[in-house]
Order: sequence, then C-alpha cells, then structure tokens
Amino acid sequence: MTAALQNDLLLRALLRQPTERTPVWMMRQAGRYLPEYRATRAQAGSFLDLCKNTELACGVTLQPLERFPLDAAILFSDILTIPDAMGLGLYFAPGEGPKFQRPVRSEADIAALSVPDPGAELRYVTDAVSLIRRELRGRVPLIGFTGSPWTLATYMIEGGSSKNYAYAKGMLYDRPDLMHRLLDKLAQSVTAYLNAQVAAGAQALMMFDTWGGILTPAAYREFSLRYAEQIIAGVTKQNEGRDVPLVFFTKGGGPWLEAMAGIGAHGLGVDWTQDLGDARRRVGDRVALQGNLDPSVLYATPEVIRQHVADALASFGHGHGHVFNLGHGIHPEVQPEHAAAMIEAVHELSPAYH
Amino acid sequence: MTAALQNDLLLRALLRQPTERTPVWMMRQAGRYLPEYRATRAQAGSFLDLCKNTELACGVTLQPLERFPLDAAILFSDILTIPDAMGLGLYFAPGEGPKFQRPVRSEADIAALSVPDPGAELRYVTDAVSLIRRELRGRVPLIGFTGSPWTLATYMIEGGSSKNYAYAKGMLYDRPDLMHRLLDKLAQSVTAYLNAQVAAGAQALMMFDTWGGILTPAAYREFSLRYAEQIIAGVTKQNEGRDVPLVFFTKGGGPWLEAMAGIGAHGLGVDWTQDLGDARRRVGDRVALQGNLDPSVLYATPEVIRQHVADALASFGHGHGHVFNLGHGIHPEVQPEHAAAMIEAVHELSPAYH
Repeated sequence: MTAALQNDLLLRALLRQPTERTPVWMMRQAGRYLPEYRATRAQAGSFLDLCKNTELACGVTLQPLERFPLDAAILFSDILTIPDAMGLGLYFAPGEGPKFQRPVRSEADIAALSVPDPGAELRYVTDAVSLIRRELRGRVPLIGFTGSPWTLATYMIEGGSSKNYAYAKGMLYDRPDLMHRLLDKLAQSVTAYLNAQVAAGAQALMMFDTWGGILTPAAYREFSLRYAEQIIAGVTKQNEGRDVPLVFFTKGGGPWLEAMAGIGAHGLGVDWTQDLGDARRRVGDRVALQGNLDPSVLYATPEVIRQHVADALASFGHGHGHVFNLGHGIHPEVQPEHAAAMIEAVHELSPAYH
Repeated sequence: MTAALQNDLLLRALLRQPTERTPVWMMRQAGRYLPEYRATRAQAGSFLDLCKNTELACGVTLQPLERFPLDAAILFSDILTIPDAMGLGLYFAPGEGPKFQRPVRSEADIAALSVPDPGAELRYVTDAVSLIRRELRGRVPLIGFTGSPWTLATYMIEGGSSKNYAYAKGMLYDRPDLMHRLLDKLAQSVTAYLNAQVAAGAQALMMFDTWGGILTPAAYREFSLRYAEQIIAGVTKQNEGRDVPLVFFTKGGGPWLEAMAGIGAHGLGVDWTQDLGDARRRVGDRVALQGNLDPSVLYATPEVIRQHVADALASFGHGHGHVFNLGHGIHPEVQPEHAAAMIEAVHELSPAYH
C-alpha cells in the first residue's frame, strides 16, 4: 500500500486544473550545489555507482526535500542509463562528462543493439523508484524521467558530449535510414523504460530532449519530435487511479513550441530564452508550461532573485497550468540559500495569480 | 588608388537591390578545413601570431578565394582583438580556446579599461585590411568584422570560454550598472574599430554576437541589442562612394529576429535553427538575410549537400536580399570538396530565383 498523496499541486498544474498556488521544483535539485549531495557522492564512488546504488540514489533524491518546500521529487539517475543497458559501456571521465567505451557508428553497430529489459538491466532504476515512493510517504509526487531518443542517439554516436556533432549529424544527413533505425530502437526502449518507472510508482514523467535544439526545424520534426510523439502514444496514461502527466523539454526548442504542443505531452519545458507569456500565447490551452528562470539568476542576491521570480509569474499571468522551475538544471556553484529564496518567492507571490 | 569592384553581388544583396544570382561566402572560410591554411598557421607560430602578421593574415584571407568562386573575402582576424588591445593579455591555450591573463571582474577592473586607439594598438588589423584590399584587386568586396560588446564582455569577464557564464551572468543580474559601464566602453571601442576598418578599405561589416543567445529576451534587448544599435548609429555609412552594409548575427537569436530587424543593420545573420522563409516573413523588407545551411550538412555527400542548398534557396524563395552562407562557421573536419559542392550549387541553382 502506498501512502495517499498529500501535495498534488504538480499533477494538477500539469493537467491544467486549478491550484492554490504555482508548484515549484528544480531540474537537478538533487545535485552538486548541495553539500550533503557531495558527501553522499564521495561515499558512493563514481557518479554511476551512485545512480546504481538504490539506497544512496533514494537518499540523494530526498535531500533537497529536507531543505526546501518543493512540490515534487525527481528520481536521481542519468539520462544515459538506456544506452548503458544496451552494452555501450557508460563511464564518466573526471571533468569531461559522460563517455561510451563502444560508440555506435555503423549499420552493424545499430543492428547489434537490442531493446533493454527494464526488469533486468535497468532493474536498479525501478528499484530506486519503488524505494523513493516508500520513503516519500506521499509528501509530494515522484517524477520519473528519460532522455529523448534523439538526445540519447547523439551521445551514443559521438561516444560522449560533442561540440559539432560531426558523427551524429553526418549520419543524419548522409544515412537518414540508419538514423531512423537507431531512433526507432531507442523509442521502443524509452517507452518500455518509462512504463516500468510508472509501474514502479512514478507519478509524473519528464522527457529531456537536451540536444533537440541543435537541429534544423525540418530535422527536429523528423528526428526528434516524431519519436517523442511515438513514445507518448505508448506510455501508460493512468496509474493508481490518477493521470500520469508527461512533460517534454527541448532545450533551445523555443522556436518550435507550437509543434511541440501537438504531440500529446501534458506539459512543455521552456528555457529562459523564451518569454513565458509569449510561450503561453503560442501554445494556448493545449499544454501546461514548466519553467523558466535563467539558472544564472541564482548567482544574484536573494532580493534580485525575488524580483525575477515576480517577473516570471507576472509574465505567465493569471490562471492555471504553470509549474515554476529553472530554465535548465541548477548550476553547481549556486548557494543553497539562493535556491531557497527562489522557492520562497514562488510560495509567497504565486497565490495572487490563482 | 583602389581597383574598381568587379563583383558587387554581396553589397547589392545586402542592400536588397536586384542581383543575377544569390551571392555566397562562408563564415570561417579562411580556416582549419583548408590544408593551405594549416600550413600557413604552422609557419606563423600561434594563432594570435598569425592574426598579427599582416602578410600572413592577408595570405590566409585570400586562400579560399583561390579555390572557390566566393563572392566576398572576410578579414582574417579574431573577435577578441579589442580586449587584447585593452591589455587583458589574450592567449590561446592548445585545445582550450581563447583565454585572458587578466579577466575583468570588479568595478576597479572596469574603471581601468580605456578605449583602444585603432591607429595604435590595433594598427595590425587596419594594415591587414589595406593590404588585403590591394591584393584583392577588386575581385570581390572585403568584409571587416567585430565581436559585439556583449560577446566581448562575456570573454573578458569569464577570462575565456565558459559553460555557465557564472561571472558574466552574476554581474549582469547583481550589478547591471557595472555591466552597462563595461558595455558602454566596448561599444565606443567597437565603433572606432569598425570605422578604422572602413577607412582602411572594408566594404561591408559583420558584427558577431556569438553569445547573445544565452540571454533572456529582456536581457538580450538591454545588454546586447541596445549596444549593437548604438554602434550601428555611429558607424560610417558610406565609403569610396558606396554604401557600407552591416550584418548583425546573434547565434541562437532566432526568437528575436523582429527586434533585431529594427536596429539599423542592413542584414541579419540567421542560424540553421530557423527556417529562412519564416525568417523572411518575420522581418519583411526591413533587412536582408544571410545564412543558413547547417554547417554539418557539409559532412554529407555532395549530392546531399546540393539538395540542402536547393531547399534553403526554395525556402527563402524568389526575390532579392539573400546572401547564402552557413548558419555558423565551417567545421574544421569538413573536406574542401564539400564546401566546393555547396558553392557550386548556389551558383547553379540560385539564378532561377532572381
């Protein structure tokens, strides 16, 4: 038996139902800006060891909730768990970001990939989801997440982060058939992965399309958005008698919000290069919006932070369907007190808009 | 006496006058993808040595024109010459991009900066412009260029490239007064610098706002666009009896094209995340557009490249005011034959639109 949900603001906001105030959480809220996270991370060994240790992953997921009155928890994990489960050999070189021992470059490489079984190779993720749900005891909903097929493909093909995406873009332009074969396997994998997270207890979902914004408008529709839509069509819509809302976030995707609003996602993440009010006018009442404070605002003083929170709330304006968040993950250099100032300002200033 | 200009397609297109075909040049056309560039670079010593050596800078400027039927030359230099002339100590650490020995972080640092004299500290640039004009013998126009104040400020404050722009964004949000003081000095410096380039023979100008796209819409207007407009107001409008058109390019600035079209620039650079036809509809007949093939298309085969050139030309459509270019600098890994395929396709396919 899972405990009844005491704070469902996030779920209601994503379904564009009335709320008393604007819910708030932060991308990467369990992360390096918190000293208690850094301590657990040191104890765990590598970043990947931390992701794969159910108890510690649960522990760091809950850390920001002990400090701040946040309206959601988000599973502590990495977007690259699926390619790792496909056998690509994920590792994190110090100061260099994620790397794969065996990048995917050829037709044979793609043919050799199989869709991972979420109950086997990815069991550590669903175990963490179940444990976090128990430990949350219904305080706030738990968000599960995944990378988008296109974003996963860029890392898999490049073998890590990239500046110019020479291999991924080369394949996209030269062998679109191969790229589609890869993206189709990834879409199947992501669908099964998200459904396993929901079955284990995830109450909302996020799909991070971190690198969709490097595409042309036509390539974005063909190689990113199309697979996001396919996944959303296959994802469990209800669990434990409640809707399971999904938020789709393409960093740099501001120019394409209208198209993104039509793929069946309940909410869209918006980065700080968009004005929230403009974004709302463009998507109408088709989706909720999540965002979009410039994470760098948290480098400023609490007074300045409060003013920018006020501006963002005013820009979205009156009515429902807004989840307050940063426009990207919180930066590691930010002082936790500055995050607290942002969250406090949302609590204080947002009821006037509802 | 300078030779009469034999090919003025670029100048006419930027002034939205009729042309027989679409002119074409490439950002970073004098660069690492050319073996002859790499040979000169090895001979010069450091990248900065190459920029400061008048003969060699002239030589690499002309190299791509020997290979390809391009419609413009662009001065070989770096966007960080102004901060270097201000005494910040520019250097290029191998594999790490530009760095400054003395970053600008405090009120005192900013107060100590003075506007460089283009005839003294930056004389090597105007000398190169004069020499290139002589060596071009009127074949095509020479484009001079600068970084935008905001873009220069980010490098000066961070001390180099950056991921999160913690120092620059921190100053912007916490001490906007200081940021404005710095940007004002940079705007004065850029104006004098561009005017010196025109006096030395530059026939068109580009302002690269490489990092404008990391700002919020409001901060973009206040900290980037406003200073670009101030510079354009102060730049020489005619020289040698001809208009000197200026192109303003904010990478990632697609959401703000309407605002960019109103600052007095003759042309706007457009990156590949925008559809050219949409961009044209948004700016109307206020400005010419320059762009916007995804530089990664050049990783593909000549046949694929040709198709993407055809798509870009069709997207802009019939009429004048288009300068064909990549949406960003050509990547170092590209084969020169692939650049040739792009340029040839523009020559062959664009007359049908004029």
